[in-house]
Amino acid sequence: MHLTALSGGIGGARFLRGLLTHLDDDTRRSGRRHALTTIVNTADDMWMFGLRVCPDLDTVMYTLGGGIDDDRGWGRADESWQAKAELAAYGVEPSWFGLGDRDLATHIVRTQMLGAGYPLSAVTAALADRWRPPYDTEVRLLPMSDDRAETHVVVDDESSPAGRRAVHFQEYWVRMRAAVPAREVVVVGQAEATPAPGVLDAIASADVLLVPPSNPVVSVGTILGVPGVQAAIAGAAAPVVGLSPVIGGRPVRGMADAVLAAVGVDATADAVAAHYGARSAGGLLDGWLVDSSDKSSVDVVEAAGVVCRSVPLLMTDVPAAAAMAAEALDLAREVGR
Amino acid sequence: MHLTALSGGIGGARFLRGLLTHLDDDTRRSGRRHALTTIVNTADDMWMFGLRVCPDLDTVMYTLGGGIDDDRGWGRADESWQAKAELAAYGVEPSWFGLGDRDLATHIVRTQMLGAGYPLSAVTAALADRWRPPYDTEVRLLPMSDDRAETHVVVDDESSPAGRRAVHFQEYWVRMRAAVPAREVVVVGQAEATPAPGVLDAIASADVLLVPPSNPVVSVGTILGVPGVQAAIAGAAAPVVGLSPVIGGRPVRGMADAVLAAVGVDATADAVAAHYGARSAGGLLDGWLVDSSDKSSVDVVEAAGVVCRSVPLLMTDVPAAAAMAAEALDLAREVGR
Repeated sequence: MHLTALSGGIGGARFLRGLLTHLDDDTRRSGRRHALTTIVNTADDMWMFGLRVCPDLDTVMYTLGGGIDDDRGWGRADESWQAKAELAAYGVEPSWFGLGDRDLATHIVRTQMLGAGYPLSAVTAALADRWRPPYDTEVRLLPMSDDRAETHVVVDDESSPAGRRAVHFQEYWVRMRAAVPAREVVVVGQAEATPAPGVLDAIASADVLLVPPSNPVVSVGTILGVPGVQAAIAGAAAPVVGLSPVIGGRPVRGMADAVLAAVGVDATADAVAAHYGARSAGGLLDGWLVDSSDKSSVDVVEAAGVVCRSVPLLMTDVPAAAAMAAEALDLAREVGR
Repeated sequence: MHLTALSGGIGGARFLRGLLTHLDDDTRRSGRRHALTTIVNTADDMWMFGLRVCPDLDTVMYTLGGGIDDDRGWGRADESWQAKAELAAYGVEPSWFGLGDRDLATHIVRTQMLGAGYPLSAVTAALADRWRPPYDTEVRLLPMSDDRAETHVVVDDESSPAGRRAVHFQEYWVRMRAAVPAREVVVVGQAEATPAPGVLDAIASADVLLVPPSNPVVSVGTILGVPGVQAAIAGAAAPVVGLSPVIGGRPVRGMADAVLAAVGVDATADAVAAHYGARSAGGLLDGWLVDSSDKSSVDVVEAAGVVCRSVPLLMTDVPAAAAMAAEALDLAREVGR
């Protein structure tokens, strides 16, 4: 079976690790081998101290490859912060973004390869070659695009003549901790971006398309916004099943409600499903999983034409994430055409 | 008093630290304030993992600023090597050059500033602004040039059609440990290089010009090779006093005899003086200090027109280096015109 997922960082990475664990179980039971292609959001990427940092690609790569710091959810295990302290001692900004000494090596290699002319997809493949996930399922990591398409968030700013200003998503998310309202989300360069090599093929050739519980606006939304991706999904034979990143009216991780509000979407499991839309009505989803505590959303989602089930969606550990993946694949079989 | 020195890395840095210690003593005794301009060799600089590394500038900056690892003589104290291990795990070459996690920050800041268009001299001033040497004497660090002039060493290579090949000095010195004969030393780009802003002024306005016990070929020689520097020294009012980096027929540090042989100079204190030449005969030196164990060289050097004294030249600790500096300044007064 060939599975293709559209993933952001931490939530997506943890779901995919559960998925690979579940697929390993299946391979042991059935002898069937599987393949997973992960199309990863790159709209969070930024230049930091002259280095190209790709937070979501790295989080997925480290998580699946066994190098992640599991408590933080991002960055490397057994990390140290000597270079960061030195950069601060030099007075170099930004000081609000954590680049660990181990993590730095990834950005240094990436930047050097980009400087040599390799596209991000080739760089990602080279980096991933070291981080081979220890699963039976073959894993491929694709950036959504080799082009620069960067999410900016418009916030109020009384000191600006326009009363507003746009900040890079990472600055909004990490430095400002999404504590002020996001008035608008703008993905600079997205209209001119093209899908990275392999992206459209991975969608067209998939047996199942999965939307992990990633941020619907700044993770999955930016992938869907790359011209050609939505049309490829619309034309794909595979069923599309998503998992709600919102449980009980709150995002599971972080501050997704801030950017949901910016696009006029309530922080509820059914509102996110409605935002993605029913595939039968030109939207994304054939199936949608909401948390057991959101049972009341099931009828609302189904009324809009999306098959919906409520199951436990809290990724408290890898087995919990694996069970979610099993539910998602069950639903995919059910809604498969 | 304004002192100007032409310095390489470890030997030069340790001498200059002794000099600053001696000048502090003088300031405490006499109330006189001094200023030191150090013109530093940049022909060892190289691009490493896409980062601009300036070994001699950093060694001088860290040594005078109190951040050096004193045992190694280069790099930062309390250093860690996580990023280096990660770069090796990615299989990225070169693996033979040690970039510590703390040290990396310096190269990252430098590379970012160079990329933004600042010349190396401005970058060096910005970096040095953090590393203010804790001495009464004002210290200024100047790269010999903002232009790229890189030392390459020609070595035998039977696998090459020409039977020889050129390697970057750092590769010859660090990876090959100067274990094969250096057939030629070529400073690529030197003929087109110009002195960095402030270099010629620092020579012209100096009260004393010092040549620390640095490598005569690949450290001091490359500075002298920047077009305009030798003429500035010839026209300067200040006496020029040097200290032999060779003691008892062997370089004090490292493998300087390998590159001395490439330019046809014996590894003796008097041969190095002859290589620099007497200023009265169009060369560099008014005065020259040799080690106490090289007393027999004194007459040879003086016969060639350079005033010579034998004094202890082993920089076993900071007071020893300070005593050497005191001797050099005594000799400068003696030969001063």
